[in-house]
Amino acid sequence: MEEPAKKSASELRFDLVSKDWVVIATGRAKRPETFAKQERQKIEVEEKDCPFCDLQGQEKPVLEYKKDSGDWAVAVVPNKFPAFSRAESLRERAEGPYSVMDGVGFHEVVITRDHKKSLAEMTVGEVKKVIDAYQERYLDLANEKLVNYIAIFHNHGKEAGASVAHPHSQIIAMPLIDPDLQQSLNGSKIFFETRGECVHCKMMAWDKEDKRRIVFENKGFLVVAPFASRVAFELRIIPKEHHAYFERIKEEDKELLAEALQVALNKLFKGMNDPAYNFFLHTAPVDGKDYNHYHWHFEILPKTSTWAGFELGTGIEISTVEPEAAAEYLRKIE
Amino acid sequence: MEEPAKKSASELRFDLVSKDWVVIATGRAKRPETFAKQERQKIEVEEKDCPFCDLQGQEKPVLEYKKDSGDWAVAVVPNKFPAFSRAESLRERAEGPYSVMDGVGFHEVVITRDHKKSLAEMTVGEVKKVIDAYQERYLDLANEKLVNYIAIFHNHGKEAGASVAHPHSQIIAMPLIDPDLQQSLNGSKIFFETRGECVHCKMMAWDKEDKRRIVFENKGFLVVAPFASRVAFELRIIPKEHHAYFERIKEEDKELLAEALQVALNKLFKGMNDPAYNFFLHTAPVDGKDYNHYHWHFEILPKTSTWAGFELGTGIEISTVEPEAAAEYLRKIE
Repeated sequence: MEEPAKKSASELRFDLVSKDWVVIATGRAKRPETFAKQERQKIEVEEKDCPFCDLQGQEKPVLEYKKDSGDWAVAVVPNKFPAFSRAESLRERAEGPYSVMDGVGFHEVVITRDHKKSLAEMTVGEVKKVIDAYQERYLDLANEKLVNYIAIFHNHGKEAGASVAHPHSQIIAMPLIDPDLQQSLNGSKIFFETRGECVHCKMMAWDKEDKRRIVFENKGFLVVAPFASRVAFELRIIPKEHHAYFERIKEEDKELLAEALQVALNKLFKGMNDPAYNFFLHTAPVDGKDYNHYHWHFEILPKTSTWAGFELGTGIEISTVEPEAAAEYLRKIE
Repeated sequence: MEEPAKKSASELRFDLVSKDWVVIATGRAKRPETFAKQERQKIEVEEKDCPFCDLQGQEKPVLEYKKDSGDWAVAVVPNKFPAFSRAESLRERAEGPYSVMDGVGFHEVVITRDHKKSLAEMTVGEVKKVIDAYQERYLDLANEKLVNYIAIFHNHGKEAGASVAHPHSQIIAMPLIDPDLQQSLNGSKIFFETRGECVHCKMMAWDKEDKRRIVFENKGFLVVAPFASRVAFELRIIPKEHHAYFERIKEEDKELLAEALQVALNKLFKGMNDPAYNFFLHTAPVDGKDYNHYHWHFEILPKTSTWAGFELGTGIEISTVEPEAAAEYLRKIE
């Protein structure tokens, strides 16, 4: 007699785009509520000592949006400690068998006025202004020579690597595309060429039918807990229509994106006690090649675990909450 | 008149094996000494409540080495909360466009007797016993069906993801090879096929000539700060002779490996105030294919930074200490 199928202590889920496997450790899964109780490390900096509050000692903003009062609402300034910096040419050299190139590019900081109000606590209109700034700087930086990829990201909380408490996003424009990212671009391309459809559209269609991983949706965007989540409570914000290039987003879609981003972050804020998180944009490179097969989106990764030796050594991430359970929990958070 | 070459704020270094780029942020580089002052979060667990001290509630050890006194010195037990667990077959299924398989494999914990004595504080002889256990379990697990890759790793300190303070390593035997790891295996293979030599041997020859990144060496092993370090103070322990398969290591080489590992960890312990770290083994898979092009080694990654939005989004890691400066600092630590 055959034994009845026993549920395994964990399952391996395959990421259709990056081709990575993740472990969903269902056997040692935690209830979503347990994450709500975790305490965050606070970065204690008074507003008077904050380098962003009055843009004290910052370089002249490259972009500034004003409030009706005349005070600034959003400012974009060059990063004072840039990981990549402007140069006229890209110098490369060999050191024995090794290759080195200068860290050429741009590194900017997108700052919102209020020291304490994170994106989760802003109005949709305020979040929209941040997205306006992302798009405006993106379009400018894409025209710079030696820029082939533009990364937009946001770190919230010390555990997520933020060194300044004042809410801010970062934009890095750089000459190269990392192989990890290249792998996802290739995954998308191969799927498109062999199946004649976009892999993200395909996943989205299934997620909408399956319903279990949908957290929120509006006319333009879907907020989902991805099937192959890298971390517990990972969320993805993806345009319902197929679009490869974030920078071409239209005015009304920016409103809808702002709403989806604000709702997603607000649900994490309320449901998980203001967790630390990172979010970033994945979009087509600006190297002039054709990426129409790609489908831009934002990924939000709450800091629910620490990468340890297994993840660092094998590249396989372990999540202790099933995305279906995370989505069910977050759907109910108003 | 040409401007004199100005040192860039950062440089991008290329990893010859994984093909990843890392950023060495020389412009905002920290002096190695600054890392010595960082405080670690301690995991406060009394020995009487420690699940490893008396192997309380653990399953029967699958391997045990005794001291002359009769007490155990090293024990290997099945992990009570396994990420992978034993099964007779590997069930795969589709969920819409997605693929899932059971988390089939083995997950074991290698425990040393003393609650407080980390590997850095052990004698070379004690470390050798741990390596004996790694090898013995590796050889056993390699014979299990459905096992294609065996990961051996060690997490030290809460920031590095250790949930139990009592020193322990982990062994995970699993059916698959992650694409990140596959990429390094491919990088090594292509280098071997096109250049007729091992990429690790090539790098080692240059590192020995250049001397700046060498931290320690004995007859059998080199301890280096890798040219394309992923994090500040990353160290690699690599056999001087070309060997693809860790599990074939001979008795006298285990002594030398134990010395190199103990010295490397002890230098970090003294030079950086007992930092949190992860280390892991990279070696040829056990899937029956030919990996003679590969060169096994251990990688030690001290927890000197937090992955944030940039690293998560692009796959590019930023290190704030040049490996040459880290090596110079650690060489002097006795």
